[in-house]
Amino acid sequence: MSPKITTELLKQLRQVMKSPKYVQEPVQAYIVPSGDAHQSEYIAPCDCRRAFISGFDGSAGTAIVTEQYAAMWTDGRYFLQAAHQMDNNWTLMKMGLKDTPTQEDWLVSVLPEGSKVGVDPFIIPADQWKRMSKALRSAGHDLVPVKENLIDTIWTDCPQRPCKPLITLDLSYTGVSWRDKIVALRSKMAERKVLWFVVTALDEVAWLFNLRGSDVEYNPVFFAYAVIGMNTIRLFIDGDRMMDPAVREHLQLDSTMEPEFKIQVMPYGSILSELQAVGAGLSPKEKVWLSDKASYALTEAIPKAYRYLTPYTPICIAKAVKNASETEGMRRAHIKDAVALCELFNWLEKEVVPKGTVTEIIAADKAEEFRSQQKDFVELSFATISSTGPNGAIIHYKPVPETNRTLSVNEIYLLDSGAQYKDGTTDVTRTMHFGTPSAYEKECFTYVLKGHIAVSAAIFPNGTKGHLLDSFARSALWDCGLDYLHGTGHGVGSFLNVHEGPCGISYKTFADEPLEAGMIVSDEPGYYEDGSFGIRIENVVLVIPAETKYNFKNRGSLTFEPLTLVPIQTKMIDVNLLTQKECNWVNDYHQKCREVIGAELERQGRHEALRWLIRETEPLIRVP
Amino acid sequence: MSPKITTELLKQLRQVMKSPKYVQEPVQAYIVPSGDAHQSEYIAPCDCRRAFISGFDGSAGTAIVTEQYAAMWTDGRYFLQAAHQMDNNWTLMKMGLKDTPTQEDWLVSVLPEGSKVGVDPFIIPADQWKRMSKALRSAGHDLVPVKENLIDTIWTDCPQRPCKPLITLDLSYTGVSWRDKIVALRSKMAERKVLWFVVTALDEVAWLFNLRGSDVEYNPVFFAYAVIGMNTIRLFIDGDRMMDPAVREHLQLDSTMEPEFKIQVMPYGSILSELQAVGAGLSPKEKVWLSDKASYALTEAIPKAYRYLTPYTPICIAKAVKNASETEGMRRAHIKDAVALCELFNWLEKEVVPKGTVTEIIAADKAEEFRSQQKDFVELSFATISSTGPNGAIIHYKPVPETNRTLSVNEIYLLDSGAQYKDGTTDVTRTMHFGTPSAYEKECFTYVLKGHIAVSAAIFPNGTKGHLLDSFARSALWDCGLDYLHGTGHGVGSFLNVHEGPCGISYKTFADEPLEAGMIVSDEPGYYEDGSFGIRIENVVLVIPAETKYNFKNRGSLTFEPLTLVPIQTKMIDVNLLTQKECNWVNDYHQKCREVIGAELERQGRHEALRWLIRETEPLIRVP
Repeated sequence: MSPKITTELLKQLRQVMKSPKYVQEPVQAYIVPSGDAHQSEYIAPCDCRRAFISGFDGSAGTAIVTEQYAAMWTDGRYFLQAAHQMDNNWTLMKMGLKDTPTQEDWLVSVLPEGSKVGVDPFIIPADQWKRMSKALRSAGHDLVPVKENLIDTIWTDCPQRPCKPLITLDLSYTGVSWRDKIVALRSKMAERKVLWFVVTALDEVAWLFNLRGSDVEYNPVFFAYAVIGMNTIRLFIDGDRMMDPAVREHLQLDSTMEPEFKIQVMPYGSILSELQAVGAGLSPKEKVWLSDKASYALTEAIPKAYRYLTPYTPICIAKAVKNASETEGMRRAHIKDAVALCELFNWLEKEVVPKGTVTEIIAADKAEEFRSQQKDFVELSFATISSTGPNGAIIHYKPVPETNRTLSVNEIYLLDSGAQYKDGTTDVTRTMHFGTPSAYEKECFTYVLKGHIAVSAAIFPNGTKGHLLDSFARSALWDCGLDYLHGTGHGVGSFLNVHEGPCGISYKTFADEPLEAGMIVSDEPGYYEDGSFGIRIENVVLVIPAETKYNFKNRGSLTFEPLTLVPIQTKMIDVNLLTQKECNWVNDYHQKCREVIGAELERQGRHEALRWLIRETEPLIRVP
Repeated sequence: MSPKITTELLKQLRQVMKSPKYVQEPVQAYIVPSGDAHQSEYIAPCDCRRAFISGFDGSAGTAIVTEQYAAMWTDGRYFLQAAHQMDNNWTLMKMGLKDTPTQEDWLVSVLPEGSKVGVDPFIIPADQWKRMSKALRSAGHDLVPVKENLIDTIWTDCPQRPCKPLITLDLSYTGVSWRDKIVALRSKMAERKVLWFVVTALDEVAWLFNLRGSDVEYNPVFFAYAVIGMNTIRLFIDGDRMMDPAVREHLQLDSTMEPEFKIQVMPYGSILSELQAVGAGLSPKEKVWLSDKASYALTEAIPKAYRYLTPYTPICIAKAVKNASETEGMRRAHIKDAVALCELFNWLEKEVVPKGTVTEIIAADKAEEFRSQQKDFVELSFATISSTGPNGAIIHYKPVPETNRTLSVNEIYLLDSGAQYKDGTTDVTRTMHFGTPSAYEKECFTYVLKGHIAVSAAIFPNGTKGHLLDSFARSALWDCGLDYLHGTGHGVGSFLNVHEGPCGISYKTFADEPLEAGMIVSDEPGYYEDGSFGIRIENVVLVIPAETKYNFKNRGSLTFEPLTLVPIQTKMIDVNLLTQKECNWVNDYHQKCREVIGAELERQGRHEALRWLIRETEPLIRVP
């Protein structure tokens, strides 16, 4: 991976930052956030402006370019990757380390007095705008919206915004019709006394209408907004996608409908003017509900007195609690996914050990090939992290020809991968050794496993927020002075985004919504040694009610059920470091893998992979 | 405990809420917060306005009186106590429960359109004002400052503000002179480019000047403010306390001093006008540093553009990290405190079992008597919680004649007590049974003990915030469906407030400062069964560096060392529920109690208590 040379681009950007063609007054700094106009984590190529200007293409990062400097903020997952991808024009700002300044503090320290800081108002979320604007103002500077995106002005070969066909999902997948979802949303709106709800997040639009798309790689979403009134539904979407008879039928566009369920289809680009019209027509006490992460541009379209902003929308919260159809779909998807991985690992053992011809890219492709053989497979759910040896320490590594290593019997191999099936989304990490792991590698792996089990087996009261469980995942590592610089888990969508709110397991958040039965999150502690190896053990787990001996204040308890059923390599476990309880957990888990995945491998006639599964799920024996 | 009859008082308050003598326009609601003008947790009798109007005298609670309603918000520690102390005029708002509205939401739901909500601007912290004011404004109401405190206008026999003599602390206690503390503070001010620092918290004034007082029961503080400039020191304090030669000498009031260390003494009541004068004299870019918890009145004295507000002041943070002299003082104080408790428990065993004549009040008095025999004893550090049987479930119970129960061989006894010694502050809880505890009582006690040990023995990276450790204390209880409705620990002052910021161990905070070596916190999980019993095990623990096998990113690790050295009753422990590691922790802890406290008991010639200590520290034996 050689860094992108950005000298010329930065020069051009600094020119347009001063050009009266684009800015009323010159801006002394320009902020390039990660997201798109929907604050998506995964974005379409046309929205990869931060990667274009800097070379750094990780999923999280904010670039700021001033007349003199260019700086990039990103988190611990990406320190190594960003350092590799950016040239010397860029300063890496390692978020989460004590001495790293915030973007605001840094700007204040480098800007000349009375500076203007520009940003695209469609890309910056309203809450970030507010925080940044306040900090800059108090230091005598101004945050200003720059209507034309300045990166786009210098990005001569910028790709077109995608506009791909839609997939309709019937009740057997979604459990609830889009009409019933609208009814539930309107009842939440009535509770809060708001008249309008603006759907800005792409996965929320998709979920609400039981539609899926493929405008963004890995995330089955499509570019659209929706504005839901108490009697109106407006869907802002481009292209001829609404001409598809299946979509018209699904949305009942041609039926005689009660007017409150009649969908008005409007051009994607008309959202701002339509919303401004809504805002202009409001009477006192009439409110419009938006996410506080909606773009500054859309938020500003509604006069301040009429805005009702919340960190999580009612759609986000409803979407997180999977219903029985969705849960069953997720189970099926994870069984198919496990079949593919058993095939893969069996194949790897046969290829890596004697031949030594399998590279990270070949392994990733093979994983995709096995997954694509499964029913209802759509695409991968994120770029496969197939990494061996030192590449494993790059937390969100993606193999490219320049970095591609060959798997060997001497190195740890880490595979973090997942897929979109029509019935569910998967995300699983396994760390394997095809030779003989060292005692130190086994020790580290076992601490990570203890953390994984501590979360997976945790019992906690109803109403507990996920961030309160994060330390359980770290305790065994902490005892030995080790740790990892990322959160422990994220929400997972149901044939939707592999990362979704409003719940998760991380020391970094506090505003997460309480966990409740039906939510689905990942459990993925790790340990990484720069230049040597990476270890991560990840299952997707379902929040379920727990039976407990007592029931304090009648609150009820919750725990997790692993949906991922892929063996955890016992060769990597130092069984003497496990408690008997932890040892039993591993054996019970492997027993379940054997039963459930074994039956499916049998059904699919995959006998060699079945033999591999049986071998890999032999019970651990702990000598007390 | 019979409730206070408040019908007449509420009638009077509602009259003054409309009286042009006190309010420009009638207020439809009046807020009575807990604190005083310094946002103290423990307050002087003249400041107990919320207790006066409602009867509820717990340490935390906010009353709001409207024309129709009177409502009291308090947290889980006080649900039972508040319910007992308040009459039917009052509605108890149980904070932390899902269905309890916030004060703002409740006000919005009950107030007529366009209401005014009054509050004393000296009593409400600026950050609360801001939040409340914003929420009310967005619903069409107004928060207004009412200069004269409306409770004071109806409180005919309100006691006088205390003004007691001061204690000077020399270097052997404080480790750092007040001059050096001023130098350090000014260097923090220079770092942040502020010209003035306003000291509003009473313990911060006391700590800064190495003075102590006794204006507030249990907290060795005195009513004062200070305003520190880069070249000036102003101390706002009343009475003839500055006439004491020892104080004059300590503050070098009569010496020829460098002008920047010359203390100007001013009347306590002149703080507002002096601060307004400071505010009026500022040039652009000159800033005044205040806590964001300083009163709205003082904060408003500085024009908004000149304010520099932080959640924790540099004094608060410096005070939390104890130096070697303070740490040694705290160790000595805890040794003396343990001697007193060994005497007490030995005495209780002799009295309770055969005679049955010891009440909660007698036991509390006896504890104070034994403590007062120790060197440098000043006073108790909080009202002793001496509670047996069902009273133990009232988390911050204080025995009064109406509720006073007799200790018996049939009930669990919980004693949470502490003292102020000139060399340190103590706070310890032990839960004892003088007869034979039931299997269920032992089971619950053992879960609480496992939680206590999980925190006390935790190893965690430098930079970890205390709230990340809170779940460790609950895990064993959660496993069985149990929990407790309070935080796990609070910072402890050094011959100062028994509760102090900016660190603690609680699921409720997120903005706590990271733990660092030298900080002192309590570790006090519990379990409470309403109407039956209460269990709590509390040690005060010192944050110390931990030796670990590895050292990730060279960050270093921390752990805790118990300063409290009082036996934990082994009779209450179900040893089969402990792991071997936990069992070893108890035995090591008891060994240390025996060595350290045993030596001191021997030195003080307290042989009977020594025999009790030896008996109570016999090692546990766990059959694997």
